[in-house]
Amino acid sequence: MSARAGIVVTGTEVLTGRVADRNGPWLSERLREIGVEHAHTLVVGDRPADIASALRFLAGEGMDLVVTSGGLGPTADDLTAEVVGAFQGRPMVLDAPLEARIGEILRPLLERFPDLDPEAIRASNRKQAVIPEGATILDPVGTAPGLVVPPPDGAGGPTVLVLPGPPRELQPLWAAATGTEPFRAAVRGATEFAQRTLRLFGIPESEIAETLRVAEEAHGLDGLEITTCLRRGEIEVVTRYEPASQPVFERLLETVRARHADTLFSEDGSTVDEQVAGLLRERGLTIATAESCTGGLLVGRLTDLAGSSDYVLGGLVVYANAAKIGLAGVDERLIERVGAVSIEVAEALADGARDRLGADLGVGITGVAGPGGGTEAKPVGLVCFSVAGPDGARLTRSSRLPGGRADIRDRSTTVAMHLVRRLLRGEADGSRNGAAATT
Amino acid sequence: MSARAGIVVTGTEVLTGRVADRNGPWLSERLREIGVEHAHTLVVGDRPADIASALRFLAGEGMDLVVTSGGLGPTADDLTAEVVGAFQGRPMVLDAPLEARIGEILRPLLERFPDLDPEAIRASNRKQAVIPEGATILDPVGTAPGLVVPPPDGAGGPTVLVLPGPPRELQPLWAAATGTEPFRAAVRGATEFAQRTLRLFGIPESEIAETLRVAEEAHGLDGLEITTCLRRGEIEVVTRYEPASQPVFERLLETVRARHADTLFSEDGSTVDEQVAGLLRERGLTIATAESCTGGLLVGRLTDLAGSSDYVLGGLVVYANAAKIGLAGVDERLIERVGAVSIEVAEALADGARDRLGADLGVGITGVAGPGGGTEAKPVGLVCFSVAGPDGARLTRSSRLPGGRADIRDRSTTVAMHLVRRLLRGEADGSRNGAAATT
Repeated sequence: MSARAGIVVTGTEVLTGRVADRNGPWLSERLREIGVEHAHTLVVGDRPADIASALRFLAGEGMDLVVTSGGLGPTADDLTAEVVGAFQGRPMVLDAPLEARIGEILRPLLERFPDLDPEAIRASNRKQAVIPEGATILDPVGTAPGLVVPPPDGAGGPTVLVLPGPPRELQPLWAAATGTEPFRAAVRGATEFAQRTLRLFGIPESEIAETLRVAEEAHGLDGLEITTCLRRGEIEVVTRYEPASQPVFERLLETVRARHADTLFSEDGSTVDEQVAGLLRERGLTIATAESCTGGLLVGRLTDLAGSSDYVLGGLVVYANAAKIGLAGVDERLIERVGAVSIEVAEALADGARDRLGADLGVGITGVAGPGGGTEAKPVGLVCFSVAGPDGARLTRSSRLPGGRADIRDRSTTVAMHLVRRLLRGEADGSRNGAAATT
Repeated sequence: MSARAGIVVTGTEVLTGRVADRNGPWLSERLREIGVEHAHTLVVGDRPADIASALRFLAGEGMDLVVTSGGLGPTADDLTAEVVGAFQGRPMVLDAPLEARIGEILRPLLERFPDLDPEAIRASNRKQAVIPEGATILDPVGTAPGLVVPPPDGAGGPTVLVLPGPPRELQPLWAAATGTEPFRAAVRGATEFAQRTLRLFGIPESEIAETLRVAEEAHGLDGLEITTCLRRGEIEVVTRYEPASQPVFERLLETVRARHADTLFSEDGSTVDEQVAGLLRERGLTIATAESCTGGLLVGRLTDLAGSSDYVLGGLVVYANAAKIGLAGVDERLIERVGAVSIEVAEALADGARDRLGADLGVGITGVAGPGGGTEAKPVGLVCFSVAGPDGARLTRSSRLPGGRADIRDRSTTVAMHLVRRLLRGEADGSRNGAAATT
């Protein structure tokens, strides 16, 4: 039986979705990496009673470790340290060295905002130096320290790791926590797991369900924990297993390869973004875009990766027809003849991006993102793509993408990424339209 | 005492963060709208025991309603309906009309993917027509129905609303559920709440903490539930209260207005994006961008809103210096003299965007997003912005933004949005640099 952990994400702003939680997922991955089972994440508002009941639930589920995020800030609704102290039966005490340390940290803030009242700021942050007695302090990255709070002396129950909410503070403090003695004691029972991620593009999820049934009947899937999901228009199959089940996973992989040769594009968890970046670097090629309906999201995605300036030259966002003509060099008569949303204009945009930016590859996208602007012939969700490369290489597609405006725009960037990948791998243009369609 | 609800988001892919949960936050807002208290969201993997313990926890906390999302798909790891059936003491039964309905829904899929085995698809989806006895069926939007599952006959406990995971299926089914008799019975005790959102830009969160303390001392904050958070570089203050506490909120609002006149930009919850769109429409102006470090994220953000083609003409993404020169018309000697990351080049980019796209407003952004490329004089996080408008109007800023590459890129779009807003409101250029700095 492995060590087990639960996560409590605090903050009414997270509960109600005004801020997306990045910490629960990130902590979950870290727990998996060190072989700790993670079954529950609880998101609770800034109410002490709700935080306390979340802690009690996880203790009742037999967790060895509970990780909390958030509620360590300077405002009065930040209460996590106090609630955890009470839960572990530890009185709150002011830690003088910590108070001095926070004072040091605040000095540059006061210099940057000279109008602020220094005493008010200090009072507001002194609260962050009041901690449960016996807790191990993790030195602040922002102004809030992390805390490792053991159960009451001599009693059982989970150790609670208290971390601040901002991810750039939480992440280094997690790393610091894993080196402390009370943390290591709490996760002593961790076991090793392997995890493998397969990615497929261009088939509905039900096809994978069928493949898993076939694999189960043919050779069993014992010892594998398999989860499948749709993600930005792709299917992701994640399998987790103890090392002894490696042969079972290998047989599953063979079955997936045999049934989905055309659509299985990643066996090592690499994303299409990473593969495109790798192929561009490997071949020493540059890329540029000309986007209409995606409005810059594709070039934004291409430049998400650090170092992308090595191969991304730039892009044209040509929302208005005048911009398509003036910036990307699309022939005005072509737009009049076939319309701005057409495979011909997508091709002209790809050529225009390549030409105007002097890039090896050009990508053109034009479509109807909606909610308005659809017609019977060109409905909302119709998007045309073209990728032009060296030596006349070209891939062009038109797809009917599902969902609302945001889905269509996001999914379009995935379709474009896959076309770029295929062109870079030298795959000939096939006849299949709608490669992006998924359910 | 108001009716209370909890949310259970299922899916190992959500628990581990491979897919971001959009449903918990969305459902939380809907519950608030109908006056139902929402205290906990539990995220659990696709394990029946974990889903069941989440349901037991929420029942133990006295919830009147539990809403689940996910786990209704065709794969074997989709188990929510079955677990909820067992929890409510209701055997699972095949609903023949529902099976026929799902068959109808699948027909176009089979036409779109002619290579698929129709029988395999049907078997895979028949499972979705097996439901807890006595549940109210909500007609599928995708292939999965929603279910309203009452507690065991004659017994107490929460009603469970079971919804599919994809947001575009979940959202219409939520609306359908609220019209059903068992749902209405479960939330009979709902009470009315008002909610007001204030947004500020350009001050650290500790300043708001101080303002709340001042307001508390001056006139009290009784009956207000106030949460503050940092969001994309802005501060959001959300206050929720029963109607009787309206005067208390009004006094708080006066205090915030008095102390933060310069930085309070929204009293009605409107976002800077919505305000910029409104101002452009109102004044009949168009906008275009020339972006370096943000790589198209600003124009992508400007075109997120439906109907943005009315005022967004397009943009230039000029990652390479050659693109800055060739596409945006930046003087090569200027780049040599002051460097690509400089307020002078930001101004030239704004002018270039305006000129090349024939727009009324041009926005230029250039900076060091990192992680590489920083120097002592121009460190990672230094970003220069300029907005040029009609009649020589201009606002230019340089800011040192905190965080990693993704934070810096995202935060930069917020700074740029605020500069555009200020220019559109005719606010003269002030002297304060670093308007974007927050802690």
